[in-house]
Amino acid sequence: MTTDETRLARAYLLRVAEPPAPEVVSLVADFGPVRAAELVRAGKAANDETAARRHLDVAARDLEEASGRQARLVIPEDDEWPAWQLLALANAAARGVPGMTEPLGLWVRSHARLDELVQEAVAVIGARAATSYGEQVAGEIAYDLAQRSVTVVSGAAYGIDGCAHRGALGANGSTVAVLACGVDVAYPAGHTDLLSRIAVDGAVVSEYPPGTRPARHRFLVRNRLIAALAAGTVVVEAGRRSGSRNTAATTSALGRPLMAVPGPVTSAMSVGCHDLLRTAGATAVCTAEDVLADAGRIGVDATTRSDEPMRSTDGLDRVMLRVHEELPSRGGFSAERIAVGSGVPLPRVRALLPELELLGLVQKCEAGWCRRQG
Amino acid sequence: MTTDETRLARAYLLRVAEPPAPEVVSLVADFGPVRAAELVRAGKAANDETAARRHLDVAARDLEEASGRQARLVIPEDDEWPAWQLLALANAAARGVPGMTEPLGLWVRSHARLDELVQEAVAVIGARAATSYGEQVAGEIAYDLAQRSVTVVSGAAYGIDGCAHRGALGANGSTVAVLACGVDVAYPAGHTDLLSRIAVDGAVVSEYPPGTRPARHRFLVRNRLIAALAAGTVVVEAGRRSGSRNTAATTSALGRPLMAVPGPVTSAMSVGCHDLLRTAGATAVCTAEDVLADAGRIGVDATTRSDEPMRSTDGLDRVMLRVHEELPSRGGFSAERIAVGSGVPLPRVRALLPELELLGLVQKCEAGWCRRQG
Repeated sequence: MTTDETRLARAYLLRVAEPPAPEVVSLVADFGPVRAAELVRAGKAANDETAARRHLDVAARDLEEASGRQARLVIPEDDEWPAWQLLALANAAARGVPGMTEPLGLWVRSHARLDELVQEAVAVIGARAATSYGEQVAGEIAYDLAQRSVTVVSGAAYGIDGCAHRGALGANGSTVAVLACGVDVAYPAGHTDLLSRIAVDGAVVSEYPPGTRPARHRFLVRNRLIAALAAGTVVVEAGRRSGSRNTAATTSALGRPLMAVPGPVTSAMSVGCHDLLRTAGATAVCTAEDVLADAGRIGVDATTRSDEPMRSTDGLDRVMLRVHEELPSRGGFSAERIAVGSGVPLPRVRALLPELELLGLVQKCEAGWCRRQG
Repeated sequence: MTTDETRLARAYLLRVAEPPAPEVVSLVADFGPVRAAELVRAGKAANDETAARRHLDVAARDLEEASGRQARLVIPEDDEWPAWQLLALANAAARGVPGMTEPLGLWVRSHARLDELVQEAVAVIGARAATSYGEQVAGEIAYDLAQRSVTVVSGAAYGIDGCAHRGALGANGSTVAVLACGVDVAYPAGHTDLLSRIAVDGAVVSEYPPGTRPARHRFLVRNRLIAALAAGTVVVEAGRRSGSRNTAATTSALGRPLMAVPGPVTSAMSVGCHDLLRTAGATAVCTAEDVLADAGRIGVDATTRSDEPMRSTDGLDRVMLRVHEELPSRGGFSAERIAVGSGVPLPRVRALLPELELLGLVQKCEAGWCRRQG
């Protein structure tokens, strides 16, 4: 089966390329995952990103192990792939924002469809060393969001993240934990039970293969997925140098609403939030109503879009439009020719074509790429 | 002496017309204060605003009584009149904002010049029923502002206002209390000593004649002076229906920066501040540095302006420009003719001409008004 082959190829690439892996992503865009995997395996492409691990041909074992733990690999070829949400990463990458590479696939521990879980989702994040004030507010906002059928996305850390997940679960709502380690790795250890509950009532998600240990750099890489899977991000508490600042910056880079909860100006754990209000264009949110008011429009847009596949070019940004307009209606152009014609750099063209394909605007043909009619 | 006559006339008008008195202000703009006072006294003009009190011909006594209490009446004809600051009221009135009438004069208990006191000034205001958190923050911000030679303007009420004044005094700085009663009336009673200290190290200011008792409507009318005399307004704590909201709205109507101190979202006394952040375009300020960063530019502008009288029309708004452009360089036009020519309503023309005169851009001549050269 093609899908199995494709899934095996993506599982392999996720195992051998440490995200973000723009070369591999670009290779997949150009040749498809199966051929890209072959090229990587043979040491013929994306060597910088894959040389160290390309011998780890354990995709079948990874998929099997995941399956044994009620997990699966969701890939862009699946219906449940949250394409609209993740499109923001491709757009940001096309605008030249570094590190915004789309994931090659997502390992998911869940009983639900991933696209449905994040159809209306808000990220609620913050400091590990939260105060009781922050924990209370995070829990309340998450509870109230979940009661309104909004999924709470967070990072499963101690402090604010944990309270956000628990608040959503307390309302019998859905919550998604995006990890910087394998979905089968209980990290932090004290959240083992919490992660199991999240997997039952929501989803535990990661682009790292089963068994991957958390590492400092992986948290930063992971943060882009939290920002991308949610319609907006709420920072509840953050110190001056909190990791939440990174997710906040990514949220803005993706064009999503950034929100911060005010707190006492005398609290070190609110310094980061107030700084986001003053310097990062965050809006002040005190309640779930505030959050929905500020993130709502995008949530609604996303819903409309995913219900009704877009066939026009209305939603495209300028760069995407240039690429689309360069495409022929009949026959086909190579990515190189489109780059020369549109003036858009080749790597961006390579990243954008599959996105335009997902949108139903372009298609592959024998000679390369062309516009899709109707 | 002309000034004495003028001062008596304005003292009379302040006694007989309850502010805001747009008809009387317009009358003064057209005929000058002395003739305006005569017309009012004779019952020939602005009857709606003066009929009830025009018999109270006690200007000389008011001036004498004030003098006995180390107070004086500062009028627009005085060098120390804070013309630049109050110009914002005339501009707002010209834009049709209701209640923005300029004061006819200001009773001042102070050893210092009023214009110098408010050259760099910030309003720090808030709820009477403040929390200890709000009182602490108000005191600290006021202290730090005063240490940087910024005058703290407030309303002398219990709670935040009192802490703001005390904070400034604690730093041996200047502070200005704008009252909704006579400058000789100790209100609130518990602040009698505080008001005396403010009069020594700053100024107690009011447009209400000596002996006037505070009244609910006077606080709202007074608030426009707090907003106008300061380069920006900081709301430290405010409940959902706080009077500070009125001063905040006026601040924005005057085009001045509005700032709010964040607090716990769980505190009823921060609800008003967070609402200002969310819906009124207030910026979040945590420290005096934040306040200076947000109010600073206007403070600097105002300083530059008052040091160096403006001779060009650069700073004029659109309506003022239309009036100015309609004026002849030689001869003179009546206000009526300028109104017809410029399309600006006559009352606005009447209000704007004296302001343009203060700016040195126009002058009165025998036939009416003309541009001032050079």
